Formats: sequence, C-alpha cells, structure tokens
Amino acid sequence: MKRKLIFGTILIAVVVAVAVVFNNKTDKPYTIKNGMIHFAEPERVAGQTSMLGFAAEPIDTVRVGIIGIGQRGRGPLKRMSYIDGVKIVAICDRHQENIDKGQARLAKYGMPTADGYVGEEAWKEMCQRDDIDLIYITTPWHLHTPMAVYAMEHGKHVAIEVPAATSVAECWQLVDTSERTRRHCMMLENCIYDHFELTTLNMVQQGIFGEIVHVEGGYLHSLDKFWPLFDDNWRLKFNQAHDGDVYATHGLGPICFALNIHRGDRMTHLVAMDTNSWIGSELSKKSLGTEEFANGDHTATLIRTHKGKTIGLQHNVYTPRPYSRQYEITGTKGYANKYPTPGIALEHDAMADSGVIPNHEDLSSHKFLPKETYDALIEKYRHPIQKELLERALKAGGHGGMDFIMDYRLIYCLRNGLPLDQDVYDAAEWSCIGDLSAASIQNNSMPVAFPDFTRGEWDKLEGQSFAK
Amino acid sequence: MKRKLIFGTILIAVVVAVAVVFNNKTDKPYTIKNGMIHFAEPERVAGQTSMLGFAAEPIDTVRVGIIGIGQRGRGPLKRMSYIDGVKIVAICDRHQENIDKGQARLAKYGMPTADGYVGEEAWKEMCQRDDIDLIYITTPWHLHTPMAVYAMEHGKHVAIEVPAATSVAECWQLVDTSERTRRHCMMLENCIYDHFELTTLNMVQQGIFGEIVHVEGGYLHSLDKFWPLFDDNWRLKFNQAHDGDVYATHGLGPICFALNIHRGDRMTHLVAMDTNSWIGSELSKKSLGTEEFANGDHTATLIRTHKGKTIGLQHNVYTPRPYSRQYEITGTKGYANKYPTPGIALEHDAMADSGVIPNHEDLSSHKFLPKETYDALIEKYRHPIQKELLERALKAGGHGGMDFIMDYRLIYCLRNGLPLDQDVYDAAEWSCIGDLSAASIQNNSMPVAFPDFTRGEWDKLEGQSFAK
Repeated sequence: MKRKLIFGTILIAVVVAVAVVFNNKTDKPYTIKNGMIHFAEPERVAGQTSMLGFAAEPIDTVRVGIIGIGQRGRGPLKRMSYIDGVKIVAICDRHQENIDKGQARLAKYGMPTADGYVGEEAWKEMCQRDDIDLIYITTPWHLHTPMAVYAMEHGKHVAIEVPAATSVAECWQLVDTSERTRRHCMMLENCIYDHFELTTLNMVQQGIFGEIVHVEGGYLHSLDKFWPLFDDNWRLKFNQAHDGDVYATHGLGPICFALNIHRGDRMTHLVAMDTNSWIGSELSKKSLGTEEFANGDHTATLIRTHKGKTIGLQHNVYTPRPYSRQYEITGTKGYANKYPTPGIALEHDAMADSGVIPNHEDLSSHKFLPKETYDALIEKYRHPIQKELLERALKAGGHGGMDFIMDYRLIYCLRNGLPLDQDVYDAAEWSCIGDLSAASIQNNSMPVAFPDFTRGEWDKLEGQSFAK
Repeated sequence: MKRKLIFGTILIAVVVAVAVVFNNKTDKPYTIKNGMIHFAEPERVAGQTSMLGFAAEPIDTVRVGIIGIGQRGRGPLKRMSYIDGVKIVAICDRHQENIDKGQARLAKYGMPTADGYVGEEAWKEMCQRDDIDLIYITTPWHLHTPMAVYAMEHGKHVAIEVPAATSVAECWQLVDTSERTRRHCMMLENCIYDHFELTTLNMVQQGIFGEIVHVEGGYLHSLDKFWPLFDDNWRLKFNQAHDGDVYATHGLGPICFALNIHRGDRMTHLVAMDTNSWIGSELSKKSLGTEEFANGDHTATLIRTHKGKTIGLQHNVYTPRPYSRQYEITGTKGYANKYPTPGIALEHDAMADSGVIPNHEDLSSHKFLPKETYDALIEKYRHPIQKELLERALKAGGHGGMDFIMDYRLIYCLRNGLPLDQDVYDAAEWSCIGDLSAASIQNNSMPVAFPDFTRGEWDKLEGQSFAK
C-alpha cells in the first residue's frame, strides 16, 4: 500500500513537473496561466519615472540627424524645408549612393549640405555628436529599437518609423530607456494625421458619435510591386520569419487615439488568427529559396479594452485588393467609415447636435449622410491642427500631407517644450501587436494579456490631446 | 519521510480533483482542455446514418403547413403563389388576427383558404396531420428546434427560419432527428440566394478569385425601429439573456458556401469578443425593467478552417449605421466586397481569364474595376439559378427576390426528389455560432472547438452545388 502511494507520488510529481515545464517553456518570451498568455511586465527600476505628459526644455532650432536615406528617409528631406526652426545636420546610410541622392535633395529644397555618414555602423558615430537634438530613424524594422536606444543613451530625442519595436522585449527597452534618459521617443505614426482621421477624432472628442463602442483598423495593401524596393529584401525576410500582425500601427494608431488608450482606457487582451500562406510562400520560394513562410496571407486580431470597447485589426500585404486601412468608428450615436469611400451616419439627435444638418428629419440614421451634408460636417469639424496646416501640408506632401503634419508637430512641440503628440507608451502599445498576435496564433488563438507599459498609470491623463 | 510522501500524495490528489471539477463545471455545456473549449460531440446512434446528399421521394404537389404568420410568415403566403406544385394546406399562429390576415393574403394571391390553427400548442395538432409534406416554421427563435423536431418525428420535412437552433444541444437534436427520421431539415437562410452573393459564388467556383483566403460576413443592422414589431418583445428578451453572436447565419451562410464548409473543408475553432452593452442595456431598462443585458452592443468572431482559411463575423443590432452583411471575399487572385457598394478587384491574370476584360493592361489590380467592366463581369457570371428565376423573383419579392429564390429552390428540390441546397449540417454549423461565441466570450475569448456535426464526413462531398 505504502509503496503504491510512493509510486503514485512520484508519478504525479513528474506529471506536475512536465506540466509546469510545458507552461513555462524557456524559449518563449511568455508564460501561460489560466488560459491566458502573459508577457513579462518588469517592475520600474527605482528612481526611473513616467514619461506621461513629459516635456523637454524648448529647443530654438532643432538639429536633426537622419538614419536611413532610402525609400522612407527621402521624404523628410523635402518636408523639413517647409518647417521653421529645424536644421538637418547629418544624414546616414549604408549606401554612398543614397547619401548623394539625399544631398541633392537637400540642395533642391534650399537646405544646406548635411554631414554624410556611410557604413553599417556609421549611425553610432552620428549619435555620438553633441550638436544633434533629434535622431530620426527610417531604417528596416529590426534596427529601430537598437538605434533608438543608442541615440537616447547619447542624449538625443528620437523619432522612429513604424513599428518602433519588433518584440515586447524591445518595447520595454524603449520605455525604460526613455524613462531613464528623459528623452522623447516618438513613433512616426503618420496615419493619425490623415484628414478623415483627424476630423472624425475631433467629432469623437466633441461627442458627436456618442460613446465609442467598436473601432476597426488595418493594413490591407498588396505589396506585389513594392517587395523589390526593400533594401536586401529585408521586409519579405522579416515576414518570412514572423507570423502575427507585424505592421499594425497604421491601423491601430488613429483608433487608439479615438479610444483614449492609456489616456483613460487601456487595451487588456487580444486574440489573433491567421490563414495559411499561399502568396507569401510563393514569393519566398521565388526570392528566398524556401517555401517556408511564417506570416499568414491574412491576419486578423480582436482587442478588448478595460472599458469594454473592442478593436478589430487586419493585416494583409499579399492578396490583390484595393488599399485599405479600414478605419471605422462605431458609436452609440453615429458611425464613420473611411474605406472604400468615406462616409458618416448619425442618429437623429446627433444630426441635430452637429449644428450643420437643419433638415435632419428627412434623413435616415440607417444611411450614409448625403454628400452636401457630409461636406458641411467635415468642414465644421476639421481639426484645428489641420486648419492651421492644410495648405502647407498639401504643398510639402507625403501621403497627401499627413507626413508633413507629423513632422511639423514633432518639430513644433520640441521647439516649444511641449509634450509630443505620440509618447513612448503609444510606440510600445502599437508596436507590441506583432509579438502578442504571434503568440496568440502559435497557441490556437489563445488570448494574450497586454503588458501595461505605463505601469498602472494608464488613467492619469484625461483623454487624447495635441499640445499647443 | 514516508508520512510526508503520503501527505503530499493526498494534497496533490485534492488539488488535481479541484482542478478537474473547475474544468468540468456541471452547469456549463462544455469542458475546457488545454486552453480550448469543447462542446459535446455525441456518437451517432447505431443504425442512424448521414443526411449528406440525402434525397427524399419526389413529391408531385408539396403540401405545406406554416407555423407563425407574423412578420416573417406573411412573405411565403405571397411567394408560394408564384411557384408551381405547392399548396398551403394549413396555417398556424397564436393570434386569430394573424390567421385572418393570412387567409386574406392567400385570397389576394389567388390561393385557396388554408385550415387555420390558433393557440399556443395548435402547431402540434397541425404537425399530426397526414396530408402535409413540409412544415415551414417562422416563429421566435427559441421555438424553432422544438417545432422542427416534433414535425420531423411526425414524418414531415421541415424548413426553419434562422437561426434553426439556439444552442449546440439543439443543433444535435436537429441533426439526430433528421438522420433518424430521414426527413429534410433545411434552414431558411435566404442571403445565400442574394444576387451579388450568388454571382460571386459562381466566380469563386470557376476559380476567378484563385484560392479563397479570408472571408467576412455579419449582421450590422440597427433594430431601433423594429424592436416593437417582435411579438411579446421576444427578440429583445432573447438578446437580454444571451451574449454571443446570436444571429450569425445571414453573414455566415454565403461565405460558408464559398469555402465549401462540410463539402471539403470544415470550421475547426473560433474566438469571440464583445463590447459592453450601452444601447441594449438602455432598451432593456425601458421595456424590460432591468439594465442587465447580456448581449454586447458589438460582437466580433474569428473562425479558422481545417484548410487554413479564416472567417470574420460581426453582430450589432444596436448602434446607428448603414445596414451591412459585410460579405467580403479575399482570394489569391481577386477580391469582392458587397457593402457599402458592391465592388470587385482582380489581379491581371484573373482579369484576362475572366474573358470580359480585354483591356486589362490598363487597369490596376489595386483598384475596384470600373463600372462598365464590373457590369460585364456580373452579367457573364450570373449564377444559373438566378438567370432562370430573376424575372419571377423580382415580381414575387422578399428582400429583393432572394426569399423567392429560396422558396422556389426548396419546393423544386422536394418535387424532383433532389438534395436540398442547405442540409441539416448547414443549419447546425451556422446556428451553433451563438452558443460557441458566448462560451468564448464568457472565458476571456478562449478558443472554442467546433463540434463536427457530420461526424467525420465533412470531406465526402466535393464542393458546394445546387442540385438540378
């Protein structure tokens, strides 16, 4: 009898040990507890404080160094020429050819020649200079965080192309480095500055749509013609190695602003699901020599917030279809949808409240507003920062002007010692989707808890705002 | 030492027992295993066989009894008058008034008076008659399965409004009763017969869109003006008591046909997420006297199939917005989207293959096809059953004709001894979403395995087809 018990004990102990090991595989950056995946949430190091609402000393002329003068690094060379109080001091790329093109572009837009840095590690040298205020990073994704961390550690504010980080661990690096060094870390999420997004954000904040219930965003854009433009095929290689929604920020940024994420609400958990890879696998076979391809052709994610709102996200850069970032706002009093054609629908009270729809009794809340009414609404609710910048934005360009507004706001806030529009927690929250959705997908769509990058301070700020 | 081991054994045994009990709560219709929710999948009773491809003896004149002559039961009284070989023998309702209106309607469309059955239990009497072939059920949701089961047990084929069942247990009742009694059990899912859906289904089956990767469907329809039309407020009461996507079939039916669900592929698992209730709760407070309201204002579900395709589903009958069933087909060669405006985009090879786009070099696969090209495509790929019935369908009406095509096909197949377009497994698969999504929502969006209602025979049929 006793021998049986001893044997039983050993057996059960082995089973428990195996179960524990399986739930805490050391090669995964997360643990599973009660059917929920949890990534690490390291405690804040003593002495380090929050960057919420952080404002640095005003900078009279913002001296900029840009890393990566390829596809995405050429735009700011033009746009900065339309902004006062900014000087491009240095540009860096691993190809001399891009530096030459960059200098030509600076000359074209009437700006002085910048110091050129060429080579794989040249960006470090540039970051070590003491006459640069802001490092502007437009390199392949996997370089964003290492470069940003290095730059902040050398006393520079940083602006990083999307996504700012490629893993939860990198997100924490950005947060902790920014908090420790007291340097701004802004992701260059341009889509929050697009016209329909800004206008409807203004409407959301004025209560026209009522309580916001559900929002959607995405990145649905076949890259078939664009893959060869990525230096050394880095983007296809990244997707080849990563499942999940690896490019979520364009879809997520604007809708997180509408939901006041970490400004009164927070994303608590997500589930994600992807398809097999047909087109990705075919692309990979042709140009990377393997059919193995981690990223599904279509990836969908659902996110829930503390206040009981939901977010739908999609990613598909493979199949042929019209471009869409989805952008959809569902509220208790109205609805806005950007793609394929921008439209707004309002319930009757909201129509009356809007102040521009006198004949609202004749309109249906079940239909999009007719063009004239829609136009009047858009005109009335145009966001203040659009009103101020629209003309210049259209001249300076960059995706219809939104890139210019982004750069303008970045420089404006730095010059005036204001909090930036997007803080390091936005960068972390919007960028962590890649890792979180991949973890869900790898576990049959198991829910994944969001790390709280603000460490409990997500309801301290009262709503999203643009400092002025 | 030995005493410690014995104590340890008892302690571990208690912990395991508690864990087992917690994972198998007796008040839930499911169990949780390795982070996945599983509903019961009872074995098939010996002697009972599959209904896949089932065809009954041809019926020369189909004798119909209709239960429920309210909102949804009046339509067939008109539509059947446009169909040969059908006779409405009896009509049943709990209100005499509805029977009177029904008789008047029969007269109006030149059909003989039917026997009227009035009262809560009168439908049973009607089902007991031996001169009825088909019981057509258009009653509140919770009555669908009990009535259908009773009718089949009394030798009748049944056609049931959507959803056919309100729980997984009811789905199994339908499947088992249909298999045991060898009677058809078809859900009246009309949206599979809508024009754009049928045309694009034909295109899918001819390979125009390539491999189908991701599809979407939904029911986004504010019922604000419609709630009072539901007898005794049954629909609001149902939603008050049930979370989850309680009305998934209009969105799911057409896209399941496009994916050949249980005709070569199957749905393996889902995750669901809903919002809090703002509008539902307000409605409930006003008309049911309680703010408690289980159904979220917006519910989203993601489904994965055995072949690695995904389905997105949404449900929102509360917030003001334009009507949408979403209906979206994403394939490796093309894309179709019904709402808000029908559109199709194709890659260049697919344009060439379509046979109606000679100038395809000038068109972008990233844009919707221009109107002329779109129209030519729709004309060429119009589904054979539309071509045959379009004129009559527009006359007979019912949601633009789709309801007529549905009734026509039902009667046609019964008269010719053919398999019906929708079998009992469709009814079960599309209706079980309510229960499955609710279980996911109640467990932080934990994944839920689909019961295989075909019991392993989901890949026996080779693709969806309409018998002729």
